[in-house]
Amino acid sequence: MFVTVLLLLVTLCAQEGHGEERAEAPRSGHVSVVIVGGTGDLAKKYLWQGFFELYVNQARSGKTFSFYGGGLSPADAATPVLFEILKAVSCSKDVSQERCALLKEQFLRLAQYRQLKTQEDYQDLAKHIEQELQQEGITEAGRLFYLSLPAFAYADVADKINNTCRPTSKAWLRVVLEKPFGHDFRSAQVLAAQLGSSLKDEEMYRIDHYLGKQVVAKILPFRKENKKFLDPIWDKHHIERVEIIMKESLDVKGRIPFYDQYGVIRDVLQNHLTEVMTLLMMRLPMNLSSSEEVLRNKLQIFSSMLPLRKNQAVVGQYQAYQTTVQQEMNKMKDHVSLTPTFAAVLAHLDDAQYEGVPILLIAGKMLDERVGYARVLFKNDIFCLQNPDAVHCKPKQIVFYFGHGSLQYPAILVSKNLFKPVLMDGEWKEVTQHTDVNILGLPISDYYVQTPAEQKEAYSELISHIFAGRKNSFISAENLLASWGIWTPLLDSLASSYPRIYPGGADNRDLLDIRVNGRDIGYNTEVVLISPDQMGGTSTNSFQVMQGKFRSDDMVSAWAEELVERLAVDIQEAAEAAVREGGVFHLAFSGGSTPLALFHRLSLHHFSFPWSHTHVWMVDERCVPLTDPESNFHGLHDHLLQHVRIPYYNIHPMPVQLNQRLCVEEDGGALLYEKEISKLVNGSSFHFVLLGVGYDGHTASLFPGTKVDELGESLVALTESPVKPHQRMSLTLSAINQARKVALLVIGKGKHELITQMSRVKDNRDKWPVTGVKPVDGRLVWYIDYDALLG
Amino acid sequence: MFVTVLLLLVTLCAQEGHGEERAEAPRSGHVSVVIVGGTGDLAKKYLWQGFFELYVNQARSGKTFSFYGGGLSPADAATPVLFEILKAVSCSKDVSQERCALLKEQFLRLAQYRQLKTQEDYQDLAKHIEQELQQEGITEAGRLFYLSLPAFAYADVADKINNTCRPTSKAWLRVVLEKPFGHDFRSAQVLAAQLGSSLKDEEMYRIDHYLGKQVVAKILPFRKENKKFLDPIWDKHHIERVEIIMKESLDVKGRIPFYDQYGVIRDVLQNHLTEVMTLLMMRLPMNLSSSEEVLRNKLQIFSSMLPLRKNQAVVGQYQAYQTTVQQEMNKMKDHVSLTPTFAAVLAHLDDAQYEGVPILLIAGKMLDERVGYARVLFKNDIFCLQNPDAVHCKPKQIVFYFGHGSLQYPAILVSKNLFKPVLMDGEWKEVTQHTDVNILGLPISDYYVQTPAEQKEAYSELISHIFAGRKNSFISAENLLASWGIWTPLLDSLASSYPRIYPGGADNRDLLDIRVNGRDIGYNTEVVLISPDQMGGTSTNSFQVMQGKFRSDDMVSAWAEELVERLAVDIQEAAEAAVREGGVFHLAFSGGSTPLALFHRLSLHHFSFPWSHTHVWMVDERCVPLTDPESNFHGLHDHLLQHVRIPYYNIHPMPVQLNQRLCVEEDGGALLYEKEISKLVNGSSFHFVLLGVGYDGHTASLFPGTKVDELGESLVALTESPVKPHQRMSLTLSAINQARKVALLVIGKGKHELITQMSRVKDNRDKWPVTGVKPVDGRLVWYIDYDALLG
Repeated sequence: MFVTVLLLLVTLCAQEGHGEERAEAPRSGHVSVVIVGGTGDLAKKYLWQGFFELYVNQARSGKTFSFYGGGLSPADAATPVLFEILKAVSCSKDVSQERCALLKEQFLRLAQYRQLKTQEDYQDLAKHIEQELQQEGITEAGRLFYLSLPAFAYADVADKINNTCRPTSKAWLRVVLEKPFGHDFRSAQVLAAQLGSSLKDEEMYRIDHYLGKQVVAKILPFRKENKKFLDPIWDKHHIERVEIIMKESLDVKGRIPFYDQYGVIRDVLQNHLTEVMTLLMMRLPMNLSSSEEVLRNKLQIFSSMLPLRKNQAVVGQYQAYQTTVQQEMNKMKDHVSLTPTFAAVLAHLDDAQYEGVPILLIAGKMLDERVGYARVLFKNDIFCLQNPDAVHCKPKQIVFYFGHGSLQYPAILVSKNLFKPVLMDGEWKEVTQHTDVNILGLPISDYYVQTPAEQKEAYSELISHIFAGRKNSFISAENLLASWGIWTPLLDSLASSYPRIYPGGADNRDLLDIRVNGRDIGYNTEVVLISPDQMGGTSTNSFQVMQGKFRSDDMVSAWAEELVERLAVDIQEAAEAAVREGGVFHLAFSGGSTPLALFHRLSLHHFSFPWSHTHVWMVDERCVPLTDPESNFHGLHDHLLQHVRIPYYNIHPMPVQLNQRLCVEEDGGALLYEKEISKLVNGSSFHFVLLGVGYDGHTASLFPGTKVDELGESLVALTESPVKPHQRMSLTLSAINQARKVALLVIGKGKHELITQMSRVKDNRDKWPVTGVKPVDGRLVWYIDYDALLG
Repeated sequence: MFVTVLLLLVTLCAQEGHGEERAEAPRSGHVSVVIVGGTGDLAKKYLWQGFFELYVNQARSGKTFSFYGGGLSPADAATPVLFEILKAVSCSKDVSQERCALLKEQFLRLAQYRQLKTQEDYQDLAKHIEQELQQEGITEAGRLFYLSLPAFAYADVADKINNTCRPTSKAWLRVVLEKPFGHDFRSAQVLAAQLGSSLKDEEMYRIDHYLGKQVVAKILPFRKENKKFLDPIWDKHHIERVEIIMKESLDVKGRIPFYDQYGVIRDVLQNHLTEVMTLLMMRLPMNLSSSEEVLRNKLQIFSSMLPLRKNQAVVGQYQAYQTTVQQEMNKMKDHVSLTPTFAAVLAHLDDAQYEGVPILLIAGKMLDERVGYARVLFKNDIFCLQNPDAVHCKPKQIVFYFGHGSLQYPAILVSKNLFKPVLMDGEWKEVTQHTDVNILGLPISDYYVQTPAEQKEAYSELISHIFAGRKNSFISAENLLASWGIWTPLLDSLASSYPRIYPGGADNRDLLDIRVNGRDIGYNTEVVLISPDQMGGTSTNSFQVMQGKFRSDDMVSAWAEELVERLAVDIQEAAEAAVREGGVFHLAFSGGSTPLALFHRLSLHHFSFPWSHTHVWMVDERCVPLTDPESNFHGLHDHLLQHVRIPYYNIHPMPVQLNQRLCVEEDGGALLYEKEISKLVNGSSFHFVLLGVGYDGHTASLFPGTKVDELGESLVALTESPVKPHQRMSLTLSAINQARKVALLVIGKGKHELITQMSRVKDNRDKWPVTGVKPVDGRLVWYIDYDALLG
């Protein structure tokens, strides 16, 4: 049954240029390819064609093949369907008709349909493969299972493969999976764990077909080839913006049951656009052929991404979507789906190279055209003194054009005022004859353009990679989880957002235009009526803030986000007043998770905060090393200090670790901190102290039963917490009550009970330490969000 | 002789809006105005007209006036000249012809010419004023001396005024000075000291007439009125670039003897353009009428400016300039003047709000047009999904248009896609009827435009301010010195630069177009032939670096700038290798001034340096507090650490201060540092140690006679320096020689003698501690610049 074609050996990876990882290259042996779901849409459209091309390319390699289309249907029904599909495969232009006919005939002879439903079916398949190998007396090279199935079936099929289909020899097993890989971090983790119980990580090939697109696959080689041009400009000082765009003109009719559960962010942004982003922004690997290095560098991007929050995204839904949902899912007229069919997301990398560069990821259905591209737009670094219309005064950009759109072919375009890129290897050609077309603001004649000499399908490319055992164009488990780690919080925060409804096509006009506002993003055009004084302004004036009294002190209340904004503004005002008055501002922060939102607000929105004149002190600290993520200082450092320009000398962590041990009384850490305060802070009176309050009424690290009065006049003390880590260092009430301003920040429904209680209890410093906060000459303000206040 | 016009009292400052500083407002009394140089060009063109307008405006105030034109010529010759000038003054449109004639007649009667040459002349003037006051029985309000003189005469005239012309009563004395105020920091300081010996600071009014231009004077009010629109966008995240431009079409014929000594930077950039920049970028004062606050905030800008170096400027000279110099200064044909008539300078503010925003200051003679403006160009924050040509997709900018150019009138323009600005007070009007003109890339119909209802001369405005005693539109002494402090180093570094020669006018074409490259600036078009591999690339490949041997170790040599670039690249490479290998890079820096250029290079050019994985250690430290500017750590902090994103925990200053005292043996600081090294640095082996070498052969703080061998195995020691501060803490040779890489950086002619000696002497650790640097398993490289190597 096997047809062996032994001709000249051709190294598999020649086309890759730097093929240092030619893992399986010229060894002969037999390969069994199984497409589970072999008569489905994807297999029909791309996969069989891809495997046929693989077969053609391997014809001279010494390898032998057999191909199995698997499915749930019985063989007699499905076999003709499979062969209809197989007959439709085609050869590339450089293969003669005769030879093509021969190869197709061979390919068809190597293929068969098999029902793959039960574990026995898989067992039979395995037996069949082994029998054939024995009969023909050939060694086995490997088994490739391509799971073209709904994701829910992955774990089960992987289990069956593991139980029955592992090659007994040293041959490899490779199992290919298609997205979706879960719908959020948790489900992706569960899926990964399930698959991990059946398959080793190196056996799994998670496909993102975008990585097989010729232009996408050339991003890293392009960056490497043009390193000398790009190195000096590939940074925040030169890049104005990065756009990764996938516009589609079609709707999702017929796919609603799937699509409505996923939406555009899970369908496109989390995977395709994110992958393109990593290729653009990752540190260029020394060795592009090293999967390990490529994947490691890609992974780093995720850890340097700023978290994606609600303000970093807008969503839309085309008008007809609701009706289609009602029809396809048999929903009632009043059913409302919030699933977005359009999304724009603004990402930022929090590192020295790209800090502040906006990265726009945008995708949607029912837009005016079908086009996909990634554009790196450079800052206008030319000042044209006398001739503002000259070529060199025009925008500078590099466009990775994936295809379609006005250009109609995949290409890499570099505007001529930037540099003349190195022509990629022989498979790419320069385009010099242009039709009169405009690409992203420039006539095409203003670009250097190169395009693949021959267009190839992404799947065919990736199939050849799988066969070669090259993993750098696939999604590693870490990569997948890291990506979900970024996207899941955004998806959660958008879960109840109403998408903007758009009519579709050219009628959308400017309805989906996006405005980048610092770290935030919004639709540029308002669709609600707004009052004139909001025009062009910001929302900062439209706080829904309430002022009142709480425990006879001032209280500010609002929804959490506005409350934090208001507190940040108040701190800045206090800072500016203090700096005007005495040139310095002493600010003491509490630990815990409540202030984190404040830290973000201060670091991302308060660019004029006088940090260079601010000293930052700790209200309390856990007795762990400062580098321990549990440390209060660590949270402050990572979420605030690392992002602002504050002198080293102005940062005052509590000395919880002395003589290589933690909070030992004799080491005198508390006294040391007290001395530092006395030395630097005028009258030991902080300008601003931020406190929180715990469920048990503790504040700072002063817990119920602390006998706060016994601490006397001392400013800093070692204390005990009922929860771990038990040992703490804390400012005392003496220190707190000498402050000029004290803010007590209380956020969240969980604190409602406490706030209700607090509103009633009398002062009792030992039982409710927070009631001991009574600035002598200063002012206490409670900042309580509506959730905590109203429950 | 006095004509007293007593009518209704009109508050002087009504037109100022927020006149909280109506110092002299409605008090009556007599004012004597003396223009020294009263028949000169400036007086003729602007000053008398300005004082006439003052007189007209004060006609109803109860004040009386006398006006003196002073000069070196005898009265009989100069009096007719003065009266010719005075007769030419004119009234504004709102004064009737009859009334104008009357006012002019009065003005002429109040004026006289006086020879002011000797001290006696001034004495006579003073006597005359007092006699008149007595005769008329009027109290004196004040004396205003306007010195319209060459700057060299200031000190002398100020001295005479001080000796003879001070009012005896409580009346004020105000002396007005015109630029140039010196030609560099030193001369400005000398001039300030000279003037300071005669006049009090509050008596001096240093004029920059740009501050009297209506649009310039409205920059702060505009910022304040539109605060709610500007606050959210007036920062590095929104501003793409600031341009402050003064283009002139004329040459400098007839002014060469003055101009050739000054050039465009001293003539225009140091004063006019710098002043406009401060108004745009300064923190908005709470109270615009408070001179103190305005001047204080202006002053802050200078301290946050990054130093201007050679790479931040380009200079040019129009072609005909040389010939004119030869003619006007009787120079020989081979005389070459390097005086620039064109300059473009790139400034940056080093603060959180504007960090990285390029500020271009450009001025020149013989350009294509006469125009002055300041433009704030905002980042393109709109992503136009479907209609890229819509209005809101266009550039967003605010233009302060000082006058001339294609608009032909002064105006403030705000592009309509930004916001609709508040119309300034009644003296400004909105322009809605436009001719078809294009202003900086946008048709004027795309702007909101406002213009002064009546155009006023800058000098008239400023004269009214002087009279009112309002100082916020004048240059304070601190401001002047701060400005020279910024500009002088640049002027010094450009002193021997050849300006680019440009033909003048439209023929300049793109010859003076500017390219911003990170922090650097250059001409965009090359006029020299360049090799193809430099096209579009950077200069980093064109190092003129020599490699060799020194004292049998490797040596790299180059001119200082290239040498530092190379060292920075080598450190980054070591860092990347170490991080790849072990995830961390341990780097130890020496103190002193030599490494400062390296620190700048690293912080401003090495954006991808893996700082987050780098630990920074000190090679040595002076026993002073870390906040002392003498401290090595302080230099490292200000020039490097403050500018990069390095975690707090990774910074390791030497513990020279413990228990509130410095380097006391018993406090065990050296041991503490040693423990920290042992704990964090694998095998106590730093990846990179940067050393210098002193004239006496010391390295680190290991001085001749230190008996380095007695330090044994210890890594850190207290040492003694022959120069102050004597006490030091230092890594030992043991610590240094355990490092993987050691760099010895030697720069400057002053080190040539030493290097010559070093090339000959044998190893002798006690006499020449640097000869003890011999890494055990590592590598030592000498980085010696050509000056030190070749003398």
